[in-house]
Amino acid sequence: MAPLVLYAGKPADRAAYERHIARAAREAGVEIRLCMDLAEVDPAEVDYLVFAGSGPVSDFAPFTNLKAILSLWAGVENILKLPLPADVPLVRMVEDGLTLGMIDYVVGHVMRHHLDIDQYIEGNFAGEWGVGYPPLARDRHVGVLGLGTLGTACAERLAANDFRVSGWSRSEKSVPGVRCLAGEEGLERVLAEAEILVLLLPLTPDTTRLLDAHRIAMLPQGACIVNAGRGPLIDHDALLAALDAGRLRHATMDVFDIEPLPAGHRYWGHPRVTVTPHIASATRPETASESLVRQIARGERGEPFTNVVDRALGY
Amino acid sequence: MAPLVLYAGKPADRAAYERHIARAAREAGVEIRLCMDLAEVDPAEVDYLVFAGSGPVSDFAPFTNLKAILSLWAGVENILKLPLPADVPLVRMVEDGLTLGMIDYVVGHVMRHHLDIDQYIEGNFAGEWGVGYPPLARDRHVGVLGLGTLGTACAERLAANDFRVSGWSRSEKSVPGVRCLAGEEGLERVLAEAEILVLLLPLTPDTTRLLDAHRIAMLPQGACIVNAGRGPLIDHDALLAALDAGRLRHATMDVFDIEPLPAGHRYWGHPRVTVTPHIASATRPETASESLVRQIARGERGEPFTNVVDRALGY
Repeated sequence: MAPLVLYAGKPADRAAYERHIARAAREAGVEIRLCMDLAEVDPAEVDYLVFAGSGPVSDFAPFTNLKAILSLWAGVENILKLPLPADVPLVRMVEDGLTLGMIDYVVGHVMRHHLDIDQYIEGNFAGEWGVGYPPLARDRHVGVLGLGTLGTACAERLAANDFRVSGWSRSEKSVPGVRCLAGEEGLERVLAEAEILVLLLPLTPDTTRLLDAHRIAMLPQGACIVNAGRGPLIDHDALLAALDAGRLRHATMDVFDIEPLPAGHRYWGHPRVTVTPHIASATRPETASESLVRQIARGERGEPFTNVVDRALGY
Repeated sequence: MAPLVLYAGKPADRAAYERHIARAAREAGVEIRLCMDLAEVDPAEVDYLVFAGSGPVSDFAPFTNLKAILSLWAGVENILKLPLPADVPLVRMVEDGLTLGMIDYVVGHVMRHHLDIDQYIEGNFAGEWGVGYPPLARDRHVGVLGLGTLGTACAERLAANDFRVSGWSRSEKSVPGVRCLAGEEGLERVLAEAEILVLLLPLTPDTTRLLDAHRIAMLPQGACIVNAGRGPLIDHDALLAALDAGRLRHATMDVFDIEPLPAGHRYWGHPRVTVTPHIASATRPETASESLVRQIARGERGEPFTNVVDRALGY
């Protein structure tokens, strides 16, 4: 019998996922039974649970026969706090739409800081004409912390846009056109050169407050930060102190310790801070459904899933 | 005897060009006699005149033995108004630094409009969290008017950033990854789809006010314009009317009919207009000197110059 797939994501996305999972399965020739409503299914019969923390499932105990939990989110640190069944693979979302959207966001904001576009936007430019053009991208150092799927894709695209890109990750990586470093010494080398620093690390005990006062002080005078990873990667008091002192030029952040960012937070309206409302990228039903169906097809063929979360590492 | 090269560009750039032309000639193995001061030379002995309209030469009559006038500018419409000797080739500046800087500017501002970054910059975002992410670049139509050196390079890079790029030029062109169109019908097709329209045309009688009320009306609702070509490509009253009516979302302009843009011009402070002070790109002495030396080497070997201005076409 075809495997039973239960959608347990955000109710607002249900109609889109119903359409796109069915389409993707049809196009891939994968037979499934798709159920969109927790109330209509016997949990013990569910093979694949398509899951988001914002969905209806909080108790995994009745799902006694799961082959996999397929997360709709790329970042799983909050899912790992739930009472997950220990022996069921948890699969992170990796999908083209999420990756491509992140590339757009990162390239857009790195270019914005590279060109210092903000100074012209408010319409009060009063400097000399025809002077003050920026260095070329090929002379601009950009650091990317985190070389997972998203960090690697962004580092490659930044390099394709001619930037001098250094990437850093926990384990040694190799990315064409990108100088890849690892370890504490590698991190210090990336920070020392990064005129623009992009954060795309997963949130783990090791990466929490990774960018603290000590490491912020390693950045070049006037550096900019783009955080599209997770809010707690940064020590926010240290960041605000560096911005207020003019040590850093700007921080553009899409993620925060508490989201939505609370009213009255010092980031709101800060002249050296740009807040974007967690829109750097998003899992998109059209492309995510194709990724879900590929994972289900692997499971049904008895192949290992890809992007299985290592619960000890936290991603 | 080595050819005599006179630098007659902007005095402020003299020291940089003296150093870089000498270096570039040495590196290329090209022997030249370089003179940086009009007062120190017999004009009749000058072989190559490195020229900008902002430099000291306004009378070409004494330069009776020129092999070429090497413009430091890419856009030559103002140089063509001068009493140039009819039988001396006028060579436009094409150089890597100018091209690469223009790519950075165009990609940066297209990405900015694609992501609608401006709404977040002023620090007063008050919408819903986690919604409102833009389409992917691969679903965004960008039009590039002008497929010369700069337009072609920008169109290619935009395509490498996943945008759906259509290019338009007077004569038929072919650019990898870019849908290339020509003629009036081709122009209408590009305009009808261009959510973001980039202007990189030379200024000629045919292109003056090319973007008039009629053609602006062909653009999709909410389109953005990036003008990095020349100010008079646009009918400014028509553009302002379209912006004020909300037909167009934004215009980012680096070039104007009169520069610096006069105080009090309606573009200053207009909420849908960004003025940049002719810094989209610039001839950079380091790379431009290499281009100058390559042209001189061609002349000395008896080869034709590249990028010779067609005075009938105006570019």
